[in-house]
Amino acid sequence: MDKPRMRWWGWGEDGHDGPVKPGAKMILSKHCGWPAGVDRPHVALEDVELPESVLPSAVRARFAEAVGEEFVRDDRAVRVSHAAGRSLPDLIRLRSGELVTAPDAVLYPASNAEVDTLLALCAEESVAVVPFGGGTSVVGGIDAVRGEFAAVVSISLARLDRIIDIDEESLTATVQAGVFGPDLEEALQARGFTLAHYPQSFEFSTVGGWVATRSAGQQSTGYGRIDENVCGLRCSTPNGPVELRTTPATAAGPNPRQLFVGSEGTLGIITEATLRIHRVPKAVQGDSWFFPDFESGAAALREMEQSGLHLDIARLSDVNETAFGLAQLGSELQRKGVLAYLRARGLTTPCLLVVRYDGTPSDVRARRSQGRSIVRRHKGVNLGAVPEASWEKHRFSTPYLRDQLLREGMIVETMETSAPWSKVEDLHGAIGAGIEKAMADRGTPAFVLCHVSHLYATGCSLYYTVFAKQEVGAEIAQWKALKSAASEAIVNGGGTITHHHAVGTDHAPWLPAEAGQMWLRMLRAAKAEVDPTGIMNPGKLMNGPDRL
Amino acid sequence: MDKPRMRWWGWGEDGHDGPVKPGAKMILSKHCGWPAGVDRPHVALEDVELPESVLPSAVRARFAEAVGEEFVRDDRAVRVSHAAGRSLPDLIRLRSGELVTAPDAVLYPASNAEVDTLLALCAEESVAVVPFGGGTSVVGGIDAVRGEFAAVVSISLARLDRIIDIDEESLTATVQAGVFGPDLEEALQARGFTLAHYPQSFEFSTVGGWVATRSAGQQSTGYGRIDENVCGLRCSTPNGPVELRTTPATAAGPNPRQLFVGSEGTLGIITEATLRIHRVPKAVQGDSWFFPDFESGAAALREMEQSGLHLDIARLSDVNETAFGLAQLGSELQRKGVLAYLRARGLTTPCLLVVRYDGTPSDVRARRSQGRSIVRRHKGVNLGAVPEASWEKHRFSTPYLRDQLLREGMIVETMETSAPWSKVEDLHGAIGAGIEKAMADRGTPAFVLCHVSHLYATGCSLYYTVFAKQEVGAEIAQWKALKSAASEAIVNGGGTITHHHAVGTDHAPWLPAEAGQMWLRMLRAAKAEVDPTGIMNPGKLMNGPDRL
Repeated sequence: MDKPRMRWWGWGEDGHDGPVKPGAKMILSKHCGWPAGVDRPHVALEDVELPESVLPSAVRARFAEAVGEEFVRDDRAVRVSHAAGRSLPDLIRLRSGELVTAPDAVLYPASNAEVDTLLALCAEESVAVVPFGGGTSVVGGIDAVRGEFAAVVSISLARLDRIIDIDEESLTATVQAGVFGPDLEEALQARGFTLAHYPQSFEFSTVGGWVATRSAGQQSTGYGRIDENVCGLRCSTPNGPVELRTTPATAAGPNPRQLFVGSEGTLGIITEATLRIHRVPKAVQGDSWFFPDFESGAAALREMEQSGLHLDIARLSDVNETAFGLAQLGSELQRKGVLAYLRARGLTTPCLLVVRYDGTPSDVRARRSQGRSIVRRHKGVNLGAVPEASWEKHRFSTPYLRDQLLREGMIVETMETSAPWSKVEDLHGAIGAGIEKAMADRGTPAFVLCHVSHLYATGCSLYYTVFAKQEVGAEIAQWKALKSAASEAIVNGGGTITHHHAVGTDHAPWLPAEAGQMWLRMLRAAKAEVDPTGIMNPGKLMNGPDRL
Repeated sequence: MDKPRMRWWGWGEDGHDGPVKPGAKMILSKHCGWPAGVDRPHVALEDVELPESVLPSAVRARFAEAVGEEFVRDDRAVRVSHAAGRSLPDLIRLRSGELVTAPDAVLYPASNAEVDTLLALCAEESVAVVPFGGGTSVVGGIDAVRGEFAAVVSISLARLDRIIDIDEESLTATVQAGVFGPDLEEALQARGFTLAHYPQSFEFSTVGGWVATRSAGQQSTGYGRIDENVCGLRCSTPNGPVELRTTPATAAGPNPRQLFVGSEGTLGIITEATLRIHRVPKAVQGDSWFFPDFESGAAALREMEQSGLHLDIARLSDVNETAFGLAQLGSELQRKGVLAYLRARGLTTPCLLVVRYDGTPSDVRARRSQGRSIVRRHKGVNLGAVPEASWEKHRFSTPYLRDQLLREGMIVETMETSAPWSKVEDLHGAIGAGIEKAMADRGTPAFVLCHVSHLYATGCSLYYTVFAKQEVGAEIAQWKALKSAASEAIVNGGGTITHHHAVGTDHAPWLPAEAGQMWLRMLRAAKAEVDPTGIMNPGKLMNGPDRL
């Protein structure tokens, strides 16, 4: 209970790190001038610069009275492990031990009523509150911003970890916010159901975090984003609880659920959600192709989605991501074999598409056959199920590679957007070019990977991974330049500033360009009704910074 | 341009009225004590009591300057035809000529800029604004409530009637708010596309109205509700325009589109929307069954929906609706033949289910076969495509029957809700019982019809039609008793106060029970940012009455 599941300085748990493979090293050396032999390990926990806790002891005593002495924690390990998410700047700061903010204490309520009580207390005592689920935010969403308040606490949902009800007739599950992804899936699958919500953070993130950040998962193309699957919820606010009954749909004005979904802890703490679940599919069938270029692959995906084929997983990598994936994920022998085979088929700049169909055996067969006939028209070379299975096997591993590269002198940044199909090609070009120029200008040329991973009839997402050599001592400035260049390209090109990572602090500067100042004012006004003193997650979303 | 498409005193256009058939008369006589020989025609237009226009001439002159003299109208015909929607109390008041409210003038802007200008003028001059699309509201959504303002005007969207763009690659259409349903479908289908949004008001309602009221259509099970199909929009507000770019999905905080969809004119006037469209299906195939009871039919529908069968139309009538439909829609011979056939198959209280599959010919065949095998397990007796085709043929005719019955001494009310599957059976019972008791208590026993018409994996809608003998001279009180009884049963039974008719004035008293006072406060606070003086559609939604 008393610490997050992840190691304090990086992603996930020990034991999952692996080396950067020689082929990947070669690519990064060639494109980024990556120097060999760098080793920059993280500092020790006791060497982390941690601001003194400023929580007044009288306030601490009130918290202890509300939840019990053992559930108010302010020791170093707990404070550090709740001080930051897992964005690139978070990792830079954690690894170097230069924390600029940390919660003054971490509170662990065990019930809705205790959460209500804590928020009322915090409002009374002018203490800022950061809701904490799994701590996997990559946008500064859980930064312990104290602002003008007396202190700042994280409220961990770790003890709100029950599955309250599974309604097998209505296919919904009502779940407390602190339930982690794997625990939820285990409980559901034991009864033949699945939520099938698999963000990359799945192993270490919580239902409450998903709902609060409008999370999308790797199977959202088939199973829907979390915002499409929330049927009801309960949110504690400083002004009392909001309970939104479970409904499949309503025309009773704007749907209030959709204001709380994505509210990022700025309105309150989501303590329960009722989610649509599915029966576990009887069959799953992967399939994979290489395309001669990204555009052919995107055209095939568009046709598959718009024809109603209903892919459950779809992931198209561009040339760079395909090359890097082949180099990092398989053996050198496999890589050379695949490339030789593709060259013989005329593909010199291959782009990998993996898809999966979930359903009944006959349905899955029929859809795979339909998918193959579409792809054939777009010049895809089929490689069967193996590449898809290989991608699935590694699908939660990339963040570990980021830790490894950070140690070895690289930065790794990720970001994403979505756009209508008619804008995707231009946007893909503009984002890549924007990033490359910004990084080249700083003397740290970037290697930019991109994939499409979420399909809609009207458009798709674009997800970027960027590598560059660390600007030692100026990593944060380097990240800001990278983030700014990408974000400018996104909002200017008609994309959304984020398709599945939320706003937090990092995207806040571009939210006005996307949605307008009027919308931010409306959000702030709505917030003031439930959080009149502004204690809920200050400095995020509508109250985030206006520049990086 | 200068008048709505509907006749001023009732539904639709002349020439579509038909008699109540003998079998239907018999049912209503038996259950409701419907007296024969009543004839209560509507008053003549010149006899309608119309409050004097209080629009100051100086303000009128400013409007005329903004949009042109001919586009400011305050003659009797225009004012009456914009004074009310088409709810039961609207029709009672219109037919008797006892209008309690009417707009002081109707304005016809021709561009976004003109709408912006008018709203700024209205804010300056303290004039309340009622946005007017097709005027089909059945919840008092366009009542010309002046409140404490100097005057009240309707702003008609009739001249904002262009289709701005069809993005064939992204499958979206950007449309001005005043485009009527049939005009939109004609333009889309000419290019091979369809929105397939068919609310019962389709012929007389507009895109802006659909978006503002979170409309659901008769094919929403297959093609999605309007809220699921809005990808972007533009809304004029008294504080200036809000433009929300087109995006397939976003994680950039709460989705602002979802606050404007369903805002019912209380935030501003939606002037444009970008909607997801579909390619016209190559094949459509209807199918129909009779079930021994409503529960078997609902269980079959639930299984079809949850198995991913994807019905495009689904409509299950309960015993009463089936009986009434057989009596009203077909010939007496057909009715007797069908009933004899069903009796021979053991069905004495048959419930009709009609469904439709849209898609490619092979897909449609496969789904029909899958549907039939599901229904077989639920004791459905198949009647093939004919009953579905017959339903489609008559699907826009019911409101004309209402006009006829009103003339002949009956009241006809409709309402709807939705709920999780696990609550549907109890809710169905409770709503019917609540209505029956309230009407019996007044000495006007009701005949209550119900159907399921929108399916979700997690639940479905229930749509009610209620007949009773008019309480002559107390029709409004009678309606209030009916509406209150139904609404209490809905919110107490876990339903939503409306699944496809919006809140308006009529549902506002029950919105707090459904969504809580906190949500209303949040909505009002958000509204104050775009409409600080509260001129936008007063008395509706979050500012609606707290009792009928």
